[in-house]
Amino acid sequence: MKILKDRILKESKVQNGDLIKVGSFLNHQVDIDLMNKIGKEFQKRFKDTKVDKILTAEVSGIAIAAIVAQYFNVPMVFARKTKSHNLSKDVYATDVYSFTGKKTYKIKVSKEYLKRNENILIVDDFLANGQAVKGLIKLVNKADANLAGVGVVIEKGFQLGGEELRKEGINLESLAIIESVEDGIRFR
Amino acid sequence: MKILKDRILKESKVQNGDLIKVGSFLNHQVDIDLMNKIGKEFQKRFKDTKVDKILTAEVSGIAIAAIVAQYFNVPMVFARKTKSHNLSKDVYATDVYSFTGKKTYKIKVSKEYLKRNENILIVDDFLANGQAVKGLIKLVNKADANLAGVGVVIEKGFQLGGEELRKEGINLESLAIIESVEDGIRFR
Repeated sequence: MKILKDRILKESKVQNGDLIKVGSFLNHQVDIDLMNKIGKEFQKRFKDTKVDKILTAEVSGIAIAAIVAQYFNVPMVFARKTKSHNLSKDVYATDVYSFTGKKTYKIKVSKEYLKRNENILIVDDFLANGQAVKGLIKLVNKADANLAGVGVVIEKGFQLGGEELRKEGINLESLAIIESVEDGIRFR
Repeated sequence: MKILKDRILKESKVQNGDLIKVGSFLNHQVDIDLMNKIGKEFQKRFKDTKVDKILTAEVSGIAIAAIVAQYFNVPMVFARKTKSHNLSKDVYATDVYSFTGKKTYKIKVSKEYLKRNENILIVDDFLANGQAVKGLIKLVNKADANLAGVGVVIEKGFQLGGEELRKEGINLESLAIIESVEDGIRFR
């Protein structure tokens, strides 16, 4: 997606070797116009896929998933990472290890919002080692729902998550795949 | 806003005396169609107000603020509550006490995304004691930005936040004001 790649080239900052900061448009300040273009692009890429619900995880996926959900005319659910009084006691839960934060956290979805046989499209801002997405897939499986696909805005192609998901036959669409960050950002 | 009040009456659950759970459409599962109606309503209510940016806080405000921002054609920024690598070191920060969680947490916005003289509309899911909104207002003030107004989806009219903000002359719009939860939900 050219307009997205242009923004990454123009505004991202690479830190600590492989941390790609895109807080100016994606996950701190959010460019809503760009999110709508991203929504349209996912709609195009998943046009032959039945989608009943968009699933994402706290925190950075939420704004993107909300806008994307408009293009599928479906509700959005976000898995809770932080303790929340909005969760019921009856949840699907799984552990997710964060390589960036170097710790394990739990993600949870109330059982009433992930139902058997629902077709779930997972949406997130980044795919790196794929721990968050794999955690969300586990929640989909626990609910006996169907995984319609996974849409991520930026894939770090130099980490293993994307390759592993594709090997498993998962319908993964990444709008920008970064191949390398050494000597500037290079896309696949 | 009648359609919102109808949903609250139909789907909310009151727990622990005054906790109003609306996870089926507002802050766990999100009804995107309703969010668009909410966005249109805020646009109408703030039609004479110059808005350059929507500001909200993690977590439950994000989906709402993203959709609402579309109706003002402006970017959205969410203050970070959890530790994030997407934050720069140069932030506006303030403490927020949560009566629900009975603890104090810090909210932060990178200085580059809240600028002097920008007109900021704060959007959030709930207004109860007003601690979160007051924290966001402090961030706006620290940035020397202008507070255009505050839009909340549900105000707990039996708690003091709304009254205090109105006394200070803040342009506060609440789409549903719950007057009492004893013997069923009653709106102002």
